Amino acid sequence: MPKLYLGADLGGTEVKLAVVDECGKIIEHNGFPNSYNSSPENVVKEIISRARRMKNFDNLSGTGVGVAGDIDQGKGVVRFSPNMVQWTNIPLKKMLGSSLPVPIMVDNDANAAAWGAFWLDAKAKVKNLVCVTLGTGVGGGLIFDGKLYRGATGTAGEIGHIPFEPNGPECNCGSFGCIERYVGAQYLSQQARAMLKKSKRSVIHKLVNGNLDLITPQILTQAAEMKDSMALNMWKLTGERLGIVLAGVINLLNPEMIVLAGGVSKAGNLLLDPIRSTVKKRAFKKPASACKIIISQYTQKLGVVGAAFLPR
Amino acid sequence: MPKLYLGADLGGTEVKLAVVDECGKIIEHNGFPNSYNSSPENVVKEIISRARRMKNFDNLSGTGVGVAGDIDQGKGVVRFSPNMVQWTNIPLKKMLGSSLPVPIMVDNDANAAAWGAFWLDAKAKVKNLVCVTLGTGVGGGLIFDGKLYRGATGTAGEIGHIPFEPNGPECNCGSFGCIERYVGAQYLSQQARAMLKKSKRSVIHKLVNGNLDLITPQILTQAAEMKDSMALNMWKLTGERLGIVLAGVINLLNPEMIVLAGGVSKAGNLLLDPIRSTVKKRAFKKPASACKIIISQYTQKLGVVGAAFLPR
Repeated sequence: MPKLYLGADLGGTEVKLAVVDECGKIIEHNGFPNSYNSSPENVVKEIISRARRMKNFDNLSGTGVGVAGDIDQGKGVVRFSPNMVQWTNIPLKKMLGSSLPVPIMVDNDANAAAWGAFWLDAKAKVKNLVCVTLGTGVGGGLIFDGKLYRGATGTAGEIGHIPFEPNGPECNCGSFGCIERYVGAQYLSQQARAMLKKSKRSVIHKLVNGNLDLITPQILTQAAEMKDSMALNMWKLTGERLGIVLAGVINLLNPEMIVLAGGVSKAGNLLLDPIRSTVKKRAFKKPASACKIIISQYTQKLGVVGAAFLPR
Repeated sequence: MPKLYLGADLGGTEVKLAVVDECGKIIEHNGFPNSYNSSPENVVKEIISRARRMKNFDNLSGTGVGVAGDIDQGKGVVRFSPNMVQWTNIPLKKMLGSSLPVPIMVDNDANAAAWGAFWLDAKAKVKNLVCVTLGTGVGGGLIFDGKLYRGATGTAGEIGHIPFEPNGPECNCGSFGCIERYVGAQYLSQQARAMLKKSKRSVIHKLVNGNLDLITPQILTQAAEMKDSMALNMWKLTGERLGIVLAGVINLLNPEMIVLAGGVSKAGNLLLDPIRSTVKKRAFKKPASACKIIISQYTQKLGVVGAAFLPR
């Protein structure tokens, strides 16, 4: 019988739970809403009670939790979470310890997603993989030599905070011109709004009923698919910017695969084509041609499956 | 008795040979000039004959060679060298095989230097280290989990070709605005010349007897030590630029140590101070404070000691 693992994806708005088999298939799943002010004790209680009600609870070979925050993976402690204000220095592993199947591993959600991309998108057939999660924030995770690479203090993989323009606009992180500041979901929408205020000739005005506050990357994709030139240009520019940063990542790390995931990656080829052509122009030939750049086919489940696979 | 290794640092102008003990001490050394047009057969012959004349030849536990070029480390083949025109697809390991102590390892010179920095500067006490070689070109090597990281095709570590300004000047590599284009030795000198043509008030005019073609990073250091404001500004700007790129590297890789080596690093604190203060301002706090940034104390021998340690 194949081994089964429990995975939990603990985010600021939702907690997803799943029992995952060795092939990455979700056997059963479950979830509940979470909030900025959630109490760690209550969330842990809820995770345990829902896990115990899973049909396969008695057959689990381990538990993995991915948390949106800064994690001490060795101790299984949530040091800090920007999305959950009460989660500071929470010994999550210890709190789950006696109630869930061991071994229990806690890591940050971007690492869990990278681990999921390694198993699902790459089928564990590459050695070195970079996963880029494109959402409100731009995060990432690194797999070197078939293992998650966490760095000295567990914070490796912050691809969103590689500088794109040294004198660019201030970023939330305190630096300037980070790539997140150009391609993060909210900044994409913000740039589109600024352009649309100047030009009335775009289908986007209609798609949002004149309310530019409703612009999202999804709307920009919809408009681009209707051949709206502003939206097409927006995606081209976004892909080129990401491509420039990824060319640097390819020169530095020479990975076999880069997997793009997260909401913004749903733009598909609108984003992927300019990334690929920019990398081809900008990166060294050999590492560029050795690196497959793809959009994850499993965005929705990368986090929870990757978490479940942490104890593997 | 401690083990001894043979190291060779094969560059376009010089070949250095050394017998190195396990502590990284050079027991005996030797060298001969090399040229752009050198024949691989002759260079190999010369390496073998000089190695055989070493007093400790019969006590060696392995051989490592660092070559300025693109290397297939698995096969020990020099695929291509920009500095030695005849060295294309040269099976160096095979050519040395029957005549030098096995195991024989061939790697590129920046990787060898990084491996040297790991053993000499870091005393093998860190897990993750980034070495940046600042010379005419800007290269680098990566140590992850105590091992040299080479990537998918052996070209990882090209720190000089991380973009600094997306629309910057064209780089030798075909891309634009790579950091090498700002902080490589020849570009430093070029920037200084451009500034000096506009301003007569600098001690540098005197230091080079009015011949601006003689400007080198060493001259800029000398001038800065004499409190020349143009030279001081030049180093400050150079350190800030490198610091911005290294802040990105720190966010991405969270290394315990960054070691700067190569001729340009001889500027010492003129370069290190602005790098450190920029990293402090630009990188995430936790990985920035976990990362020690130093200038190698062993620049001259990193390559040959690192090469000797490849078979370790």
